[in-house]
Amino acid sequence: MEIGAVNALSYEDFVDVFGNVVEKCPIIVAAVWSRRPFANLLHMEVSINEFIEALPESGKEGILRCHPDLAGRDLQSGTLTEESREEQGHAGLDTLDAAEISHMARLNIEYKLRFGFPFVICARMNNKATILRELSERLKNDRTGELARAIEEVKKICHLRLKTLMLHDLPNKL
Amino acid sequence: MEIGAVNALSYEDFVDVFGNVVEKCPIIVAAVWSRRPFANLLHMEVSINEFIEALPESGKEGILRCHPDLAGRDLQSGTLTEESREEQGHAGLDTLDAAEISHMARLNIEYKLRFGFPFVICARMNNKATILRELSERLKNDRTGELARAIEEVKKICHLRLKTLMLHDLPNKL
Repeated sequence: MEIGAVNALSYEDFVDVFGNVVEKCPIIVAAVWSRRPFANLLHMEVSINEFIEALPESGKEGILRCHPDLAGRDLQSGTLTEESREEQGHAGLDTLDAAEISHMARLNIEYKLRFGFPFVICARMNNKATILRELSERLKNDRTGELARAIEEVKKICHLRLKTLMLHDLPNKL
Repeated sequence: MEIGAVNALSYEDFVDVFGNVVEKCPIIVAAVWSRRPFANLLHMEVSINEFIEALPESGKEGILRCHPDLAGRDLQSGTLTEESREEQGHAGLDTLDAAEISHMARLNIEYKLRFGFPFVICARMNNKATILRELSERLKNDRTGELARAIEEVKKICHLRLKTLMLHDLPNKL
């Protein structure tokens, strides 16, 4: 898809196409539609990131809380969004054995109790070994630092989802 | 549900229960979870409204753009959220004849072209006659005034959705 075609989209089509570049937060791209026309994809991505950064701390926590656990309940029950399912599969999280699932679940619980939001990492840039290592490491962060760290991961996920969508022709998605 | 039970919910259960009190914007209640404990339902509702008011203008537009058209495509195709379907049905919008659907569609298009977001009104507090009258009237507003007006309707919808959920026991929804 060319940026000219993106700029020509109604807000309804824009949200249909890009609504999940930030997991379960279509309000973000629905807001960023107001910033059109975009000079290029980077301009659109920067607009999304600026919207996220301008949110109060609770809003950033809200974004994280819309994310599923990695290798968690939604993966086991098949209720992940299409994007999350592909990403968790890419990192091998859909082929964990029982011990690995249990280990991941324990760390996820510990993380959520400590920070009040789920562990978010760009699964496409990782594999199960690096994800487990990062989860253990980031548990040592202070809350403010970890919130900022997790939001950086949201932006990486958004970057790759945007790139994937731009590779597709418009009619394939609408 | 008592407020004590609400305050005891994990963020996951809280978002499961209250995630759609603002249509397709679970990030809002996911953010407001940070404000617990709530003294009562009003305190929770005020926290939601304060979060909405603190958003930039584009964020408020984003909320509106997550709403379906009244008597529109989603109603015809059965893809409304459960809450929207009940509300539009309550106002009689699921029993319009072909001429009424066409009339509503023309006004919705005119409204969206003028403001860049869909016409939002608390359907439970209206019927098809008052909705059509309001749609025609509000088309005359300036953009700033109409954005504020529409956000007030979002808050009314949220108020009634919250009240409905609080009437239910927790296990019914989880």
